[in-house]
Amino acid sequence: MATVEGSVLRVPDDTLAGRLALSACTVDSGVNSLADIRSWLARRRAGQLHHVERIPFAGLRSWRFEDGSGDLRHDSHKFFRIQGLRVHSDYRHVRQWTQPIINQPEIGILGILIRDIDGVPHCLMQAKAEPGNVNGAQISPTVQATRSNYLRVHAGNTVPYLEYFQNLHHGNVLADVLQSEQGAWFYRKRNRNMIVEVDGPVEVGDDFCWMTLGQLHVLLAEDNTVNMDTRTVLACLPGGFEGARGDRGEFMSALVSSCDPARGGLRTRTEAMSWITSREAQHDVRTELLGLNEVREWRRTEDVIRHQEDRFFRVMAVSVRADSREVAGWTQPLIEPVGVGSIALLVKRVAGVLHALVSARVEPGYRGTIELAPTVQCIPANYAGLPGELHPPFLDYVRERDPGQVWFDAELSEEGGRFYHARNRYQIIETPEDFPDGGRPDFQWLTLHQLNSLLMHSNYVNVQARTLVACLRGLR
Amino acid sequence: MATVEGSVLRVPDDTLAGRLALSACTVDSGVNSLADIRSWLARRRAGQLHHVERIPFAGLRSWRFEDGSGDLRHDSHKFFRIQGLRVHSDYRHVRQWTQPIINQPEIGILGILIRDIDGVPHCLMQAKAEPGNVNGAQISPTVQATRSNYLRVHAGNTVPYLEYFQNLHHGNVLADVLQSEQGAWFYRKRNRNMIVEVDGPVEVGDDFCWMTLGQLHVLLAEDNTVNMDTRTVLACLPGGFEGARGDRGEFMSALVSSCDPARGGLRTRTEAMSWITSREAQHDVRTELLGLNEVREWRRTEDVIRHQEDRFFRVMAVSVRADSREVAGWTQPLIEPVGVGSIALLVKRVAGVLHALVSARVEPGYRGTIELAPTVQCIPANYAGLPGELHPPFLDYVRERDPGQVWFDAELSEEGGRFYHARNRYQIIETPEDFPDGGRPDFQWLTLHQLNSLLMHSNYVNVQARTLVACLRGLR
Repeated sequence: MATVEGSVLRVPDDTLAGRLALSACTVDSGVNSLADIRSWLARRRAGQLHHVERIPFAGLRSWRFEDGSGDLRHDSHKFFRIQGLRVHSDYRHVRQWTQPIINQPEIGILGILIRDIDGVPHCLMQAKAEPGNVNGAQISPTVQATRSNYLRVHAGNTVPYLEYFQNLHHGNVLADVLQSEQGAWFYRKRNRNMIVEVDGPVEVGDDFCWMTLGQLHVLLAEDNTVNMDTRTVLACLPGGFEGARGDRGEFMSALVSSCDPARGGLRTRTEAMSWITSREAQHDVRTELLGLNEVREWRRTEDVIRHQEDRFFRVMAVSVRADSREVAGWTQPLIEPVGVGSIALLVKRVAGVLHALVSARVEPGYRGTIELAPTVQCIPANYAGLPGELHPPFLDYVRERDPGQVWFDAELSEEGGRFYHARNRYQIIETPEDFPDGGRPDFQWLTLHQLNSLLMHSNYVNVQARTLVACLRGLR
Repeated sequence: MATVEGSVLRVPDDTLAGRLALSACTVDSGVNSLADIRSWLARRRAGQLHHVERIPFAGLRSWRFEDGSGDLRHDSHKFFRIQGLRVHSDYRHVRQWTQPIINQPEIGILGILIRDIDGVPHCLMQAKAEPGNVNGAQISPTVQATRSNYLRVHAGNTVPYLEYFQNLHHGNVLADVLQSEQGAWFYRKRNRNMIVEVDGPVEVGDDFCWMTLGQLHVLLAEDNTVNMDTRTVLACLPGGFEGARGDRGEFMSALVSSCDPARGGLRTRTEAMSWITSREAQHDVRTELLGLNEVREWRRTEDVIRHQEDRFFRVMAVSVRADSREVAGWTQPLIEPVGVGSIALLVKRVAGVLHALVSARVEPGYRGTIELAPTVQCIPANYAGLPGELHPPFLDYVRERDPGQVWFDAELSEEGGRFYHARNRYQIIETPEDFPDGGRPDFQWLTLHQLNSLLMHSNYVNVQARTLVACLRGLR
């Protein structure tokens, strides 16, 4: 950040967008080539081998179903608790239900350290295995720590680089915002998404590697490589750099224009905000935490807690043996979705400006009533056997063989520390300008500039949409 | 709002700030003079005479203490409910308590209609009596309606002008944002603060009157004249017009510069956001709704529910006879604070730019953990007999005989539909640039531009600070 000459007053750093754009354009870095990074990730995957086994709940150590409530919780009362939630909602055809939910009231830190190396900003990324990952280590933020982690509840090692995110100095914070996570699985969870820039030398541990935004964007398009926590933090990078990346073809030109507030959009900023307010005020959602014992439509066996029709997700338990973690081995519960999800953002060009069709989505674990979600976000298996009119809007369109120009298509995983094999197919699909969106009041076409502005604040853009914003920025 | 020539894309109306500035500069309007407005208000006060009497709880009609919970609620289950809240907080010296709180989950509408008359934007204001007001009718928004009001739960008259706020058209919304109210008295209450501009003719009822922003600002500086709902909506007007109002003296020049993002501030926007995030993440506040019967430190008599030391507030009941309301007479409970509050914003000039000292304040009814509050916000009577180190920061400074240059000093009331004689002395006091703020982590100096930007979003700026932002804008 810059200080006005001869004054104590400070204004934003106007070189930032250009520097981030340079990083986003740089795939051949002299620090580490893409081949170097792939080879480092493969080494760390081998080095952090996790042996993960499904176990019955009776095999959990230090976790128990609490007397009375039936909640599944840790003996320390830290980490998280799986309890029950009763939901009344006017949003979908089911108006009232109960379900298990993860209650983790602590605010964790997801932080990426950035440093100029050879004149190009590089991110210090971590290879980190999580028990729920399908493939061991994925590329993670520099710091990914719950409060219990960094207050050392399980008496393991300290969290490397944490001090950069706890002792902030003038001008070195590029982003610092609380963001929600999956509102269907987490009760009002939030993490502090941080990006901090440093000047001086930084020692790089074995599990860490410098890479440019451009390199991260290449890896983001590969299946199950860049983890959810990295994606949400990348989405919180101050927007604008996409607009400084130059023009390659009509679609990219429309993407660049979409970041330029002077070009405008189908809605002004005030209208977009008014639409969000109207959706937040429109939907009536009330929730009440319950004991896990009070959840009605779910059944508990020795191994799983599942919905009576085996829809949605299951609560299950694993035993983990690992060599590179805060502790050497542990058991824990995880949430296992019943199938691979489909998460798609429809985009279209209007007068040369790219617009994305977002949905105002109700999830019971949100702190507000709605957050903005991708056009489609569901687990198709949940709708097996249901008539088409009960399918989520646009799902059938996205699942057609040729739904439009596909700009992004990769399978990415959700947080492997809480979710077991939670895989989603993420897609960005361009539709014709006259795409029939049906004028549905819960859907709206917004520009990337509008989404960027919302991402500086909490509780507007949900975690799945944040992944797709990061993917949009990474298109080349 | 404007449309780019020959395009469907739309950009913000860049004439808006200038038009609002013109309205703010206009005190002598040809439509209604200040004298006309005062005379209209006096007439409406006489015409809307409310006969308000304290009654014992047993005198309430259609309200009862619910069996079991003990909650005080309406027979229809609408309007609001006074129930209990348990609070665990690390914010002040008392770490745990229970208290009564108003639970009103419905989102109401507070809306001001604006129209150009003779080239100057005028606001359609209402004279509206509320049973808790010290002086009957005050100047209120065009529409001030709970959802129960406008869905006609009490089968009264319809709400005039409501349709302008329910049927929004392209380009006529100037502000539309959900804002909190008193977090010490309301549980997660929010109202939709709206400003809508119309083109065509509007019929003006007896209780309504067109006035400019400049006229509203003059009246705002008079005791108990402009009600809380008007003040919060005015604060949500898009910022920027203060900067177009020209320069009258060094203080006003610093105020104008404070609205200019190019001038900068002691903190950049990113730093200000990071500070807010750090305060939200720092404080640990947990609340739990209870039955009113479960509130421990409070005593119920035939007439009041009060704290065992008679601090904070009392729950009481009134009977109202009125001729100009949705219904002709009614009884209802109200909250009565134990004394007149002191609410003060310290401001200082730094390099010619005005900064305001805001505090990150925990109140148990906020949806998040903190909101930004004025420098001082308390009822001094609550601290009677307590040693100075337990007084709120800066209270003793504000209460000194000569605390600095006082730019605003008026007694204003809080919402008279819920609060009985809730009067606060609002002050804006200029301190020297070297004012010793003690480097307290919960306090920060922000520019008016930074506050304006936050006011486009929910849950950043509390209702007391919104009043003082409206007052700052109205200084002349």
